[in-house]
Amino acid sequence: MNIKMVFSILGRTLLIEAGLLFLPLLVGIIYGENTWASFLIPIGGLIAVGLPLALLKLKDRSIHVKEGFVTVAFVWILMSLFGALPFAISGAIPDYIDAVFETVSGFTTTGATIIDGINTMALEEISRSLQFWRLFTHWIGGMGVLVFVLAILPGYNSGIMHVFRAESPGPSVGKLVSKLTRTARILYGIYILMTALEAIMLICGGMSVYESVVHSFSTAGTGGFGIKGDSIASYSVYHQMVIAVFMFLFGINFNLYYLILIGHFKKAIKSEEFIAYIVMVVGATLAIALNILSLCANFGDAIRLSFFQVTSISSTTGFSTADFDTWPALSKAILVALMIIGACGGSTGGGMKVSRIVILFKSGISDIRRMLHPHSVVSTKVEGDVLSKETERNVHTYFILWAAIVLGCTVLLSIDCNDLLTNFTATLACIGNIGPGLNFVGPACNFGFYSPYCKLLLSFVMLVGRLEIFPMILMFAPRTWKKGS
Amino acid sequence: MNIKMVFSILGRTLLIEAGLLFLPLLVGIIYGENTWASFLIPIGGLIAVGLPLALLKLKDRSIHVKEGFVTVAFVWILMSLFGALPFAISGAIPDYIDAVFETVSGFTTTGATIIDGINTMALEEISRSLQFWRLFTHWIGGMGVLVFVLAILPGYNSGIMHVFRAESPGPSVGKLVSKLTRTARILYGIYILMTALEAIMLICGGMSVYESVVHSFSTAGTGGFGIKGDSIASYSVYHQMVIAVFMFLFGINFNLYYLILIGHFKKAIKSEEFIAYIVMVVGATLAIALNILSLCANFGDAIRLSFFQVTSISSTTGFSTADFDTWPALSKAILVALMIIGACGGSTGGGMKVSRIVILFKSGISDIRRMLHPHSVVSTKVEGDVLSKETERNVHTYFILWAAIVLGCTVLLSIDCNDLLTNFTATLACIGNIGPGLNFVGPACNFGFYSPYCKLLLSFVMLVGRLEIFPMILMFAPRTWKKGS
Repeated sequence: MNIKMVFSILGRTLLIEAGLLFLPLLVGIIYGENTWASFLIPIGGLIAVGLPLALLKLKDRSIHVKEGFVTVAFVWILMSLFGALPFAISGAIPDYIDAVFETVSGFTTTGATIIDGINTMALEEISRSLQFWRLFTHWIGGMGVLVFVLAILPGYNSGIMHVFRAESPGPSVGKLVSKLTRTARILYGIYILMTALEAIMLICGGMSVYESVVHSFSTAGTGGFGIKGDSIASYSVYHQMVIAVFMFLFGINFNLYYLILIGHFKKAIKSEEFIAYIVMVVGATLAIALNILSLCANFGDAIRLSFFQVTSISSTTGFSTADFDTWPALSKAILVALMIIGACGGSTGGGMKVSRIVILFKSGISDIRRMLHPHSVVSTKVEGDVLSKETERNVHTYFILWAAIVLGCTVLLSIDCNDLLTNFTATLACIGNIGPGLNFVGPACNFGFYSPYCKLLLSFVMLVGRLEIFPMILMFAPRTWKKGS
Repeated sequence: MNIKMVFSILGRTLLIEAGLLFLPLLVGIIYGENTWASFLIPIGGLIAVGLPLALLKLKDRSIHVKEGFVTVAFVWILMSLFGALPFAISGAIPDYIDAVFETVSGFTTTGATIIDGINTMALEEISRSLQFWRLFTHWIGGMGVLVFVLAILPGYNSGIMHVFRAESPGPSVGKLVSKLTRTARILYGIYILMTALEAIMLICGGMSVYESVVHSFSTAGTGGFGIKGDSIASYSVYHQMVIAVFMFLFGINFNLYYLILIGHFKKAIKSEEFIAYIVMVVGATLAIALNILSLCANFGDAIRLSFFQVTSISSTTGFSTADFDTWPALSKAILVALMIIGACGGSTGGGMKVSRIVILFKSGISDIRRMLHPHSVVSTKVEGDVLSKETERNVHTYFILWAAIVLGCTVLLSIDCNDLLTNFTATLACIGNIGPGLNFVGPACNFGFYSPYCKLLLSFVMLVGRLEIFPMILMFAPRTWKKGS
């Protein structure tokens, strides 16, 4: 284990976080808020810890798979521990564990909140600079902070690919262009462009600049934190639809946008994952609209509510315009299925990823064929290429570990009692980085009632979900820390 | 596809079922009940259909994997359709779909009942001969009817192994001795012996001979049908404990009993699956006992209730002595986990099987190792042997299909509304061949309120669970029916 290299990247990332914290500080100054200490103290702490690490002298700059995973896990945990300080210091979220939960929920783009107005300030009372930071964490976490570090800092060799892979979502991560730094810059370029586009469209509909920007952060990261108690319900239909469309767009693999940008439009829309994602969203929207028809004024209304909720859950954002916990069982079952599946690989969305489901489905079909004809050679093709045994195997392992963690976390949450459906959907909502679940963690509720033990457990599960299981699991594997290996 | 061979085995099995129906007929005669027509009509039907098929002249006696799966699927479906007739004809369960659900639930050893006393007779009103048949179906289905056919009928070549494999539970089915017929006889011998032992122990405690025998059938098949509304709760503690111990014993791989019989005691108790099963039962019993302590008179009481329920659910029998739906969330979560895991492979129990969980766990560990050291050779060892890639792959596929079916069935059940937890646990209880679930399908309730559509769906899922997915899925694969393949 090249632990010095891990520390070095860690240090650089913490310095970047310090830099990012100047943005909410600026917002506070603009709006004349008295929150500067809440940001300056963590900035000081980040510099104090990050600078010595970043200045470490490295003889060996090599990074292997193991270092990639460990770096990513450490970066995300430390980033969250520091990122929680502004909430705790300002008194918006006095309890530090609550603040950590909220920050992990922010960076992982989950959007599950513990802000209940009882143990914390009410959502509408929290100052603009803190809300800015709260929703900005979604934007930082969406594309990944290490990708950002790669995009702006030079001096890494090819081994850094392992860090990139460990942080990026989806079963197979490829470079768009031959240089990784350029790939990271292209991705961030598209990300910034689309976020700006959404903000402009929201402003055009009459939303204030501040609200437009923070809601665009939240949408772009497919996070789901809002600044109002009813999420997006009190905004106009125009605003709701702009947000719905952008939730859908941010759930698509960013490679497709790159393909479109360089003129390969046909190749982009032929992507099997993209087609599956569209079929899923359209199918679920229609099914739920028919199912909730009797609760709505007319079919248009039903389609609107359904489309918003389907894009919100399938992109794993978690905004809501209706309390879907009161919808009939079929709608809830479909939403739970969407929670599990999630968005496309290579998007800012969470869940298992549509591409993994496509791979699981196709490899299942191949297996059935192989069973019927044991002596014939059967290969699985995805996106036109034969799927490598390794990728297939990784997807299987991912799924098995995913299921084990969901089951295990549901059981562990149940130690603190509550209700089984609540615990199960809370786990799904956290591992899928969605936000709201059903029952006591439904869209009209929050996670504030959970004990500190459950909040830490769910924070861990959110990180497991965002980092796609392996980095967090490998942290606990004794082999990772064995000397000389 | 050698369809003639499939028909021939099918015919023989239907004749066997006709023979088995003479037993409840005899019970009816002994108790002077007027139920002979309810049994003689189906017996006539079975002979009329079975005899011509059994007498088919076969040129080609070869059986391949495909024929194995198709035979097993057809046999189980037809057996259930005929087996339902006594209930429908006698008027105990007037609706034929209800009767089919009950019979499938019987043969698959699920034990989920639709008998509600409203659309059917009350449980206590049903005549002894029909109750005998109802609980006897558990016993027939437990070890497998085709295994029975193999045990008593001569004249099959080595290809019949495919039928044996398709019907037997667990990830890998081996022959105990070189000849398959002898293996089947040994298994049935152990089965009959243990059933008799339980009946004798129940009789010694003062239970009537009739009740002892039918409850032993239900326990041996790990079924769970009872003859009283409160399942086993009104019997004495002695009877409850005898049943609990036998539920535990029938959840163990029968190969172990064979090993013990031939003196290989050490090898038997070193089985990893067996150890995992014991750890699971003991751990769950203690955890639940502590969790329900406040609801019980004392710790002994809590252990007793917990042990009964844990052995009942982990062996997938489904008897109950308490309404566990009223227990705290942790107990319910543990029971749901046990429902998913199930009993040992090669037992009469259902679920995913402990051995599959052991394989999933170990192959997950190997994958993590492989990830950390991409260039080293890592193999997975189970029960002392290196796990073949094929078995590992099959277990993965099984698990993926299992999860897809559970999710799909929960969504499809939700079309008829009801409650999500009910639909989810009903699906788990049916695919795991357990019986009761939670909420509206809890141990104090029944499946009678479901619509005919849901009952057929759940019947299908019970067969999927008992036959371990592949035979039922392959029935729908177009390739199975392609000519010349």
